[in-house]
Amino acid sequence: MTERVESRLTGPVRVVGAGLLGTSIGLGLRQRGIDVILADASPTNLSIAIDYGAGRAADPADEPQLIVVAVPPDVTAQVVAGELAAFPGAIVTDVASVKLAPLEALREAGADLSRYIGSHPLAGRERGGPLAGRADLFIGRPWVVAGHDAISYRRANAIDDLILDLGAILVEMTPEEHDQAVALVSHVPQVVSTLMAQRLGGGAAAALNLAGGGLRDVTRIAASDPELWVQILGANAEPVRGILEAFRDDLDRFIEALDDPAAPGARRKLAEEMARGNAGVAQLPGKHGQDRRFTSIVVMVNDTPGQIARLLNEIAEVGVNLEDLRLEHSPGAPIGLAEIAVLPEAAARLTDELAARGWRIAG
Amino acid sequence: MTERVESRLTGPVRVVGAGLLGTSIGLGLRQRGIDVILADASPTNLSIAIDYGAGRAADPADEPQLIVVAVPPDVTAQVVAGELAAFPGAIVTDVASVKLAPLEALREAGADLSRYIGSHPLAGRERGGPLAGRADLFIGRPWVVAGHDAISYRRANAIDDLILDLGAILVEMTPEEHDQAVALVSHVPQVVSTLMAQRLGGGAAAALNLAGGGLRDVTRIAASDPELWVQILGANAEPVRGILEAFRDDLDRFIEALDDPAAPGARRKLAEEMARGNAGVAQLPGKHGQDRRFTSIVVMVNDTPGQIARLLNEIAEVGVNLEDLRLEHSPGAPIGLAEIAVLPEAAARLTDELAARGWRIAG
Repeated sequence: MTERVESRLTGPVRVVGAGLLGTSIGLGLRQRGIDVILADASPTNLSIAIDYGAGRAADPADEPQLIVVAVPPDVTAQVVAGELAAFPGAIVTDVASVKLAPLEALREAGADLSRYIGSHPLAGRERGGPLAGRADLFIGRPWVVAGHDAISYRRANAIDDLILDLGAILVEMTPEEHDQAVALVSHVPQVVSTLMAQRLGGGAAAALNLAGGGLRDVTRIAASDPELWVQILGANAEPVRGILEAFRDDLDRFIEALDDPAAPGARRKLAEEMARGNAGVAQLPGKHGQDRRFTSIVVMVNDTPGQIARLLNEIAEVGVNLEDLRLEHSPGAPIGLAEIAVLPEAAARLTDELAARGWRIAG
Repeated sequence: MTERVESRLTGPVRVVGAGLLGTSIGLGLRQRGIDVILADASPTNLSIAIDYGAGRAADPADEPQLIVVAVPPDVTAQVVAGELAAFPGAIVTDVASVKLAPLEALREAGADLSRYIGSHPLAGRERGGPLAGRADLFIGRPWVVAGHDAISYRRANAIDDLILDLGAILVEMTPEEHDQAVALVSHVPQVVSTLMAQRLGGGAAAALNLAGGGLRDVTRIAASDPELWVQILGANAEPVRGILEAFRDDLDRFIEALDDPAAPGARRKLAEEMARGNAGVAQLPGKHGQDRRFTSIVVMVNDTPGQIARLLNEIAEVGVNLEDLRLEHSPGAPIGLAEIAVLPEAAARLTDELAARGWRIAG
C-alpha cells in the first residue's frame, strides 16, 4: 500500500493551511512521492501536520510549481494574493467552499489572475484539524475547478493534475454555477438543519428523550462550527437566500395542507407533498450512506465465540484485503450478519471462496 | 444467548399486524417463552412472520391476556374496537405513532375503554415488513404509555409488563403530551426533510453530483412511505402545524439576516443563528449516532494481513463478547483503527488485557 505511484504533478507543491483539507492534500501528494511544503499561521498545527507526514517546513529557496491555499473563506483572497506575489513562478489555487467572492476580491485587488484558478473539493469529515487528515479523503469525490477567462488552459492544467493525483473527480463549473450548486446541496441543507435544531431549544426534556434516528440525521450538521458557516453564508448569501425563499413557499403550502386534514382533497395534497420529497431524494446519485468505492458482501455468522475471527482468517487466506467490516448482531438471535467491504474487483472471487468454505452469503 | 429468561407477562399475547413492529414484538416475547398469537390481514405477511419465529397462527380457543394492535394509524381505532369486542377478557394496546386520535375515535364509538390503553414504542428501522423484525428492536428505546382515566392502574399494568419484557424504557405521558412531543421530535423533522428534498427536484444534475454526507443526512427520511405519513400527519395536524409556523418565523428571520451580510451586525446575527442551532442539537440526549448500550474501545492495528483476526482471537481469549466492530482504514496509511463495542462493564478489563498483550488503545 505504501509503494510510490506515478504522479502527474512534478512539485514541489506548497500547501498553505494545515487543517483537515491541507493536511489531507499533503498526505495524498506525499504518498505519490511529491515534495510537499507546508505552511500554517499556527506553529502547533504546522508541526503536527509535519509529524503526521503531510509535508516539510518551508525553505527560503523553495520554488513551488503549485500552491494550494486551504484557509478559511474570509482570508482566502488575501492569502492567495500574498502567495501570488511571493512566488511569481507558481500557479495558485484555493479550496474554499465559495468561489465567486474570492475571485472578485482578487480581481479588485489587482492580483495576477493569469496564475490563479479557484477550486473546491467536496470532501470533509465530522472532525477537523490536521490529525483528521486522510490521504484518501478526496478519492472518488467531486472537485470543482471554477474557471475564468484570465488564466490559460495550459496553466490551469496544474490544478487538474492535483485533482487527478489525489484521486478526485474533476468537475468544471463557472464560479457562479458552483456557488449556486453548493447553495442547494450544502448551504441550504445546513440552514435547514440549524433551524430544525433551533426548534429543539424550546422542547421539554421529556419530548427530547423520545428522539430517534430521523431527528438525529436531520440535525447532525447543526452542530457545525458557527464561525466557518458565517463566512460561507456571508460569501454566498444571494443564492442561499433565493433557495430559502422557495423553501418558504413550499413550507407555506405544506402548512396550508395541514390546516384542515379532513377537508376534501387535503389528504391527496399531503400525499403529493410527501411524494415530491421522495422524488427529490431519489434524484441524489448513488445509494445513501454507501461508500461507492467498495462492494459489500454480507456473510451470516453463528453467534459462537471465534466465528468472526475464523471468517477474517479465511478472508486473509483467500488473499483479499478487507476495506471495512460492520457487524450486525441481534442479541438473542442465533445468527449475526458481517458486512464486508472489499474492492469491487475482488467481490465475486471472495463470494465464491467463502461459499466454497461453507459460509452462507446473505447478499 | 438463547436461554429463556423470566417474563412479567404470562400470555398468551395476541399481536395484530405482522409488520416490522408486530413481528419484532412477537420475536421479543417468544424469546422470553411467551405464547404469541399472530394475526395479519395479509396471509403472506402472516406466514412469513410465523416462519420467522415471531409466533403461531390464531386458534378459536385462544384467550389472550394482552392484545397488541400494530396496524397503520388510520385503521388502528377500528381494529382496536374489533379486538375489544372479540376478546372481552383481554387488555388491548396499540403502537400507533399518534395517541389522541385513536383514543377519541374509540370514545366516540363507545368502545370499552376500561380495557384499552394506547402506547407508542419509539423504535424503527429503515426497512419495514416482517423480515426486518428484530427481537432487540425495543431494547433501551423509549416506549410511551398514554394514560387516560377510564382504565384502572391494575389493568394498565399488562402494558407496563409488555414494555419491560421487551427491554424498552417506559415513559408515561398523556395522549396530548405524547402527540406534542412526537410532533417536535419526529413529525416536523419529517416535514423539514421532505421540503429540503423537494428543492432538489429543481436542481441540475451537475449540482446534485456535488452532494455530500450533510445533504444525505438531512434528506434521508424524505424517502419515507407517503401513505403512512399522510396518516400520521393527518392525525396530528394541529401540533405539527404549530411547530412549522414557529419554524417559518425562524426562517423569515434567517432570510432577513442574509439580506445584506455586509451590513453592520449582520454577521453577528448569522453567528447567533448558527449558535442557536448548536445549542438545540446539543440538547439531544446521548452522543449522536452512538449506541448507548455499549462502550467503544478504539484499537490501533497495523495494516498487515491477519491483524484484525489476531485481535478478535485475543478478545475471544479474554472472554469478552464483541457486540459490534467497525474498522476505519485509510488506504495508504500504515495504521487502521478498529472500534470495538462491548458491554460497559467489560470495557475496562478488555482495555487492560489488550494493552497487556501489546495492543495500542487509541481511545
